[in-house]
Amino acid sequence: MPIQSTRSDALQENANERAAFDAGFIAVEITRLLRDDQSAAVKDFLESQELADVAALIEELDEDDDLAVLRMLPLHDQAELLGYLRARAQVDLATRIPRRELVTLMTAMSHDERADLFKQLDEEAQEAILPALSKAEREDLRRLAAYEEWTVGSVMTSDYATLKAEMTSTEAIEALRAQAIEAETIYYAYIIDEARKLIGVVSLRDLLTARPRQQIAQIMDTEPVWVRADEEQEEAARLVARYDLLALPVLDNNDRLVGIVTADDAMDVTEEETTEDFYKGAIVQPLELSVADATISMLYRARIFWLVLLVFGNIFSGAGIAHFEDTIAAHLSLLFFLPLLIASGGNAGTQSATLMVRALATGDVRPADFGRLLSREVLIALALGLTMALAVSTIGVWRGGPDIAIVVALAMISIVLMGALIGMCLPFIFAKFDRDPAAASGPLVTSIADVLGVLIYFTIAARLLSL
Amino acid sequence: MPIQSTRSDALQENANERAAFDAGFIAVEITRLLRDDQSAAVKDFLESQELADVAALIEELDEDDDLAVLRMLPLHDQAELLGYLRARAQVDLATRIPRRELVTLMTAMSHDERADLFKQLDEEAQEAILPALSKAEREDLRRLAAYEEWTVGSVMTSDYATLKAEMTSTEAIEALRAQAIEAETIYYAYIIDEARKLIGVVSLRDLLTARPRQQIAQIMDTEPVWVRADEEQEEAARLVARYDLLALPVLDNNDRLVGIVTADDAMDVTEEETTEDFYKGAIVQPLELSVADATISMLYRARIFWLVLLVFGNIFSGAGIAHFEDTIAAHLSLLFFLPLLIASGGNAGTQSATLMVRALATGDVRPADFGRLLSREVLIALALGLTMALAVSTIGVWRGGPDIAIVVALAMISIVLMGALIGMCLPFIFAKFDRDPAAASGPLVTSIADVLGVLIYFTIAARLLSL
Repeated sequence: MPIQSTRSDALQENANERAAFDAGFIAVEITRLLRDDQSAAVKDFLESQELADVAALIEELDEDDDLAVLRMLPLHDQAELLGYLRARAQVDLATRIPRRELVTLMTAMSHDERADLFKQLDEEAQEAILPALSKAEREDLRRLAAYEEWTVGSVMTSDYATLKAEMTSTEAIEALRAQAIEAETIYYAYIIDEARKLIGVVSLRDLLTARPRQQIAQIMDTEPVWVRADEEQEEAARLVARYDLLALPVLDNNDRLVGIVTADDAMDVTEEETTEDFYKGAIVQPLELSVADATISMLYRARIFWLVLLVFGNIFSGAGIAHFEDTIAAHLSLLFFLPLLIASGGNAGTQSATLMVRALATGDVRPADFGRLLSREVLIALALGLTMALAVSTIGVWRGGPDIAIVVALAMISIVLMGALIGMCLPFIFAKFDRDPAAASGPLVTSIADVLGVLIYFTIAARLLSL
Repeated sequence: MPIQSTRSDALQENANERAAFDAGFIAVEITRLLRDDQSAAVKDFLESQELADVAALIEELDEDDDLAVLRMLPLHDQAELLGYLRARAQVDLATRIPRRELVTLMTAMSHDERADLFKQLDEEAQEAILPALSKAEREDLRRLAAYEEWTVGSVMTSDYATLKAEMTSTEAIEALRAQAIEAETIYYAYIIDEARKLIGVVSLRDLLTARPRQQIAQIMDTEPVWVRADEEQEEAARLVARYDLLALPVLDNNDRLVGIVTADDAMDVTEEETTEDFYKGAIVQPLELSVADATISMLYRARIFWLVLLVFGNIFSGAGIAHFEDTIAAHLSLLFFLPLLIASGGNAGTQSATLMVRALATGDVRPADFGRLLSREVLIALALGLTMALAVSTIGVWRGGPDIAIVVALAMISIVLMGALIGMCLPFIFAKFDRDPAAASGPLVTSIADVLGVLIYFTIAARLLSL
């Protein structure tokens, strides 16, 4: 988008088009306004914006300007905004904020986000911050930061709202009012006993519709859905999605409530896991940073392993061709159809694998469905193979005569069937051995289908053409 | 899971393991209990369950049994449960429910889910139901059902909570209490003027923490994030995720509030769109039903188009090989390396394309980042190509001597670089021409890389080996 105007009106115009919030463009305007000492105009603009957009803007600003803009916001907004920054920008900013100010900010942050920030800081910065926090906060921070990266504990937050079972609904609403500033959500409240064991969950909606004197014990759901802190984070995301929850309680191994996973954090987990599945499907290993932020060496390491492995896998295809050198030398026109046949097996296999990997990931298909799906897949693959055989046999007649056409058509049907079956079975085989079905990637399926495709094609050719 | 016990205790045991809720297993037990006239035990069991799980159970039960179990639930739960059923099971059940009962049920359903169900019914059933509904409900149903499948309107619901700007926070909370039974959510309330134009949004949390006499006009957010009803549904999902919303207001072209998209519906949209992206990445066209429910003919039609198209695309690879028949006849050992070189270009290209497609979909990378990413990609591809060239040149010396090794190594570097650049550029080219970048699928990239790979390999071979 070209810069249409140097006046701050341009900002407002742009901001109305939220679909196209262009942080880079706005950053240029903001920088200009700051240079011109028009911080009142900047402040006005910021007030009309969503924090997620201001965060995107701050990432685009130069050093010092970003801090100046951050400080124009009320403390609570500053704290929330830090959570919207990407990991790298967050740490970069945090290391430039004076320690005392950072401690105030971190105290105001939601507990999960401050633990995430804390983990990113270097040891020196961590040790400078810890003594400045209250004892309760220090312990909370240490506890949350201790969970491993892939666990539910690492994405939960500890600032949830709690109630007592013997409260009336009116008392409970008052209690939630008092907890509203601190708690991540007050729309679900958790009822715990003295040992902090979870005994029930109640929604603010149920509290509002209950009779004023009704006891929480009578309203609450005594068998809520929950998850263990040391389970994999995708399990929390799965439960939130399946049961349409706004938040999911997290228990330790003694059934004590230790945190909640909110719906928006569950969505982030799902996005992260889905990205990993996309990568696996393209033989890319998980990245520590986003693609935009990743270094050359990170991307190299994420990609090289499978590429080299499949080079060696494809030697078998080469060996297959070498084995049939005589047949090829006698009928060089066979080579014309080699890429097309081989690619078809890989393509059909990639389709089958992707359909199954995704269906297994969303729970649409379960490993137990294998038998039923297999027979359906055979019929589909035969229909696909026949159609494609028809398509190539016409080219076969034209390029090599009727003999070649028959060879190519038969090879096509067999290769498509073989590719589809490999693609269909591989995800289930991985699941069977407790591996991620997503590892049945297109390139892996294609490599296996390549080797077998070469063998099928030239075996058929050698048999039929020597008759 | 084997059936461990025929007593209803087995149900309870199983239900505690929510992670492994096995609807098929439980359905067998429930059927048995119904045969033995133990409906009290079934009812007890149902009460302790989440509706999403009961829905999965009902899908597993035989005809009549499913209706019997549904009717054991209170009306409101029956209505909510219908929303959890998969489209096919929902229609199947709805057509067996007597008309009068169905009308009562649909009246209790949330507005978006009842519109979805209505659209699935055949015309006869639709016309039987409409006259039995109240005028307001009939109009609401018609309006929601009229939106096209891919729009925001098709996923929004019209049972949102509204407030007036001049209410005090206390009055507003009372008003929400009254709307709590009907509204999809009361955690966000929408402030509209007489023309139903949206003038603000307030959260129940803000209402609770406001002073009792404070006016809504002073508390509400007057510049909320919103979306148009005729935009694409993924735009609503994107906004909900970006701004961490529980619900997003939907406006018509006259700025009137016509519905909201809730966070759980936004999550469903994201899952649907992600599935489509996975399919595109594997040259499978969108399916009308889930993979588990799709018929053979649906799957055939979703897969055949690109498969045949790429067969014709791969003719160029064959033509490339045919063009170099003399070189190949003189050095048949070149064929050994053909599959491995060709596959490497496709694999590197699939990696690059997938990384870019996903980054563009999540917003991690924008089309404007192309230049910066391109130079990084060249460096990564050279590093990958060099590593792989080293790996193959050792095999080259062994299989064909130093000359062949040099040809193969040079070809590997060029082919990997070419593949990676095609994979990297194609998604941006599609985006440039307003096409979905996800169409830059692995198989498409691989097909293009195959053709160019054949040409690169044999051109290098013809030049170097004839010297």
